[in-house]
Amino acid sequence: MMFLARMDVEFPPHLTPEQIADFQAREKEYSGSLQRSGEMAGIWRIVGEYANHSLFDVESNDELHAILSGFPMYPYLKIRITPLARHPNSIR
Amino acid sequence: MMFLARMDVEFPPHLTPEQIADFQAREKEYSGSLQRSGEMAGIWRIVGEYANHSLFDVESNDELHAILSGFPMYPYLKIRITPLARHPNSIR
Amino acid sequence: MMFLARMDVEFPPHLTPEQIADFQAREKEYSGSLQRSGEMAGIWRIVGEYANHSLFDVESNDELHAILSGFPMYPYLKIRITPLARHPNSIR
Amino acid sequence: MMFLARMDVEFPPHLTPEQIADFQAREKEYSGSLQRSGEMAGIWRIVGEYANHSLFDVESNDELHAILSGFPMYPYLKIRITPLARHPNSIR
Amino acid sequence: MMFLARMDVEFPPHLTPEQIADFQAREKEYSGSLQRSGEMAGIWRIVGEYANHSLFDVESNDELHAILSGFPMYPYLKIRITPLARHPNSIR
Amino acid sequence: MMFLARMDVEFPPHLTPEQIADFQAREKEYSGSLQRSGEMAGIWRIVGEYANHSLFDVESNDELHAILSGFPMYPYLKIRITPLARHPNSIR
Amino acid sequence: MMFLARMDVEFPPHLTPEQIADFQAREKEYSGSLQRSGEMAGIWRIVGEYANHSLFDVESNDELHAILSGFPMYPYLKIRITPLARHPNSIR
Amino acid sequence: MMFLARMDVEFPPHLTPEQIADFQAREKEYSGSLQRSGEMAGIWRIVGEYANHSLFDVESNDELHAILSGFPMYPYLKIRITPLARHPNSIR
Amino acid sequence: MMFLARMDVEFPPHLTPEQIADFQAREKEYSGSLQRSGEMAGIWRIVGEYANHSLFDVESNDELHAILSGFPMYPYLKIRITPLARHPNSIR
Amino acid sequence: MMFLARMDVEFPPHLTPEQIADFQAREKEYSGSLQRSGEMAGIWRIVGEYANHSLFDVESNDELHAILSGFPMYPYLKIRITPLARHPNSIR
Repeated sequence: MMFLARMDVEFPPHLTPEQIADFQAREKEYSGSLQRSGEMAGIWRIVGEYANHSLFDVESNDELHAILSGFPMYPYLKIRITPLARHPNSIR
Repeated sequence: MMFLARMDVEFPPHLTPEQIADFQAREKEYSGSLQRSGEMAGIWRIVGEYANHSLFDVESNDELHAILSGFPMYPYLKIRITPLARHPNSIR
Repeated sequence: MMFLARMDVEFPPHLTPEQIADFQAREKEYSGSLQRSGEMAGIWRIVGEYANHSLFDVESNDELHAILSGFPMYPYLKIRITPLARHPNSIR
Repeated sequence: MMFLARMDVEFPPHLTPEQIADFQAREKEYSGSLQRSGEMAGIWRIVGEYANHSLFDVESNDELHAILSGFPMYPYLKIRITPLARHPNSIR
Repeated sequence: MMFLARMDVEFPPHLTPEQIADFQAREKEYSGSLQRSGEMAGIWRIVGEYANHSLFDVESNDELHAILSGFPMYPYLKIRITPLARHPNSIR
Repeated sequence: MMFLARMDVEFPPHLTPEQIADFQAREKEYSGSLQRSGEMAGIWRIVGEYANHSLFDVESNDELHAILSGFPMYPYLKIRITPLARHPNSIR
Repeated sequence: MMFLARMDVEFPPHLTPEQIADFQAREKEYSGSLQRSGEMAGIWRIVGEYANHSLFDVESNDELHAILSGFPMYPYLKIRITPLARHPNSIR
Repeated sequence: MMFLARMDVEFPPHLTPEQIADFQAREKEYSGSLQRSGEMAGIWRIVGEYANHSLFDVESNDELHAILSGFPMYPYLKIRITPLARHPNSIR
Repeated sequence: MMFLARMDVEFPPHLTPEQIADFQAREKEYSGSLQRSGEMAGIWRIVGEYANHSLFDVESNDELHAILSGFPMYPYLKIRITPLARHPNSIR
Repeated sequence: MMFLARMDVEFPPHLTPEQIADFQAREKEYSGSLQRSGEMAGIWRIVGEYANHSLFDVESNDELHAILSGFPMYPYLKIRITPLARHPNSIR
């Protein structure tokens, strides 16, 4: 079951560069594991923005929310979710 | 080079059901050929809306515009394009 | 799995009162069957608007889209869907 | 008399994790008591957001405002209310 | 129990001046009766717009929706409702 | 001459509870005197929000601005004004 | 007492060029008389749009609404009004 | 060549009342000189807001930007510019 | 003096393909002459939309409005103009 | 391949004038080198705003994102990108 996400990162001003680098390293690891398990079907940078579009393939809304709230940077993410269904013109 | 599209279909009221069915059949054929060639990397229905999100993998903006304006239903599509770049956390 | 819907009805001007009454009768029947099966967990009129908020309890995005596109008045509905998860403060 | 609420939580940056945990514990208790009394007819997490949709069943606007302003986290909630009426297609 | 309404009138282009005048006459009568009964506590023209702000004093959301949907011009009104509570600074 | 106002209160985070209570006490006194003089024809809390809708009955735009900028909490108010005219359906 | 207006012209598609020319001629005459009387203190075309910004100097909201609704093209104007007060930095 | 400006003042919270008063005094002087030279053709307070609408009569976009960026409070102004042309109905 | 334009084309439904082709041919000729004279400094298609961004280099707002209103398709164009000034980082 | 950018600068309040001047000097150098290489085809100040519109001529979305994220002030820029294609009326 597919969902499109748009995530915008908004770090508070008090974070140090070290804290940000640590968040980014943990984010990359978490994101990688989600991609290897297939729960995250793709992630792309939005050109010019500290934001991404990503695709999630999950069993339920609860599973999706658990995955999203598990992101290390979750407190600093503004996330908008669009539920997707199979398109009749899709060949897959 | 990836682009995310959102396409909303808005048929004018004067079209007959036969005309609409014909548009949809030609749209499906065109969409299928784009997917087989790899130019359209995915298409999903937005739940509850006569609209889709789709991913395009093309060489240039001009190629993307040529593909989009080739859709049989192009005059009735409202299209918004978001250019995407590789995400540093992507494992692909 | 719960989803909140907002549906706005926008009839085209060429429909006759008889056609509208027929749509409404079939809509009521379809809506009733969805409520009896539990797929529609509730429906309320938005005060002052030809619109409703409704709750759907379904297994997947595809099922939800199939239900929504089955509404007799679907071509005249503008639908916006919000996916819901269990709230930690819910006692149910 | 039903109302749909959307509540977005926006904590100010100076709160400590302990203060936030205390707010959340008191919020849960208050929310539970409202659900047991029937004044809150349901609450759901909006997937990916620190926000909820909830349903209130109250006698008056004044009662609703008193309930809402009694939330421990009320100063940090952005609340939008939609008044609901009985829908003619509802079977309840 | 007070509600603020904003109503915008949007007549479809096919109505004749006679039909519009008839709607307006019946609207005035209905509006007058609501004011005499106290259910409509006030109505003002928004300067420069075919729109009004009005105040309703009713017992319930259902009563308000019944009153609003009883307006002769209801099919041509776009209505937005804001529920109001007693203000602590009000001297009434 | 009537105007509808919507006022949203946005206190800066550095104010102490004592300062806020002092502002609120002075606001109540000022608001009461405006109501007794008839310049403020009504004030209502917007349900769920730290905001009000109020009606002003004044001689000119300059008088209205002087009244509004005299509110003790004026620096923390976001105010939007809608000029109102007599409605032809009003019975007053 | 000054008000800023923004007026957008939206002619319905069924008007003939002759009808439009007639509207424009009467509009020009009406606009000229308002300028000569001083009630309209200025009018400017918004570059690239069939729209204007204009300044009105009137005694009351009711007078302003009467003036605006007297425009020959009033049924085809979308008007937004901003009430203005004397600015402390104005040298007039 | 005329331009309509809307300027909203947003002082950062760290400014002292003395600093603000100093900004306002210098702003008034600068604004007065622009009015005396004719580059600023008018300025009005927007009722209820710390904002103004003003008219500028300048030779070029570059001159307008130089004038605007010369305001003492420029770093704290949010400015939106609308280019104006002569209106065919203007009698001037 | 530079201006950025965004123009969206919205043909009314009653135009025939021949009428549209005629408009487009005349538009192309007019656009070409503006580019050769230097008044239009560039024009680009917005990918996926029947719209363009274009740059104009003109002497005044009045000249720009005259140019824009001279487009054969002007009645069907929705135009938004942004005035531009020299950027301090520009090397030209 | 052309892209239109709009960039708004939003410095955080804690930066000193020296830090800002340093950012601006490095920004100017970077911007100049992009213009000399042809990757930035133009840059203009938006009148009255700390913002620019600029044109980029690049080979790919990835190259554009690399260029944009290389701006010294990138953390303080809000950037919106519009992909452009060749316009059929362009004479270039």
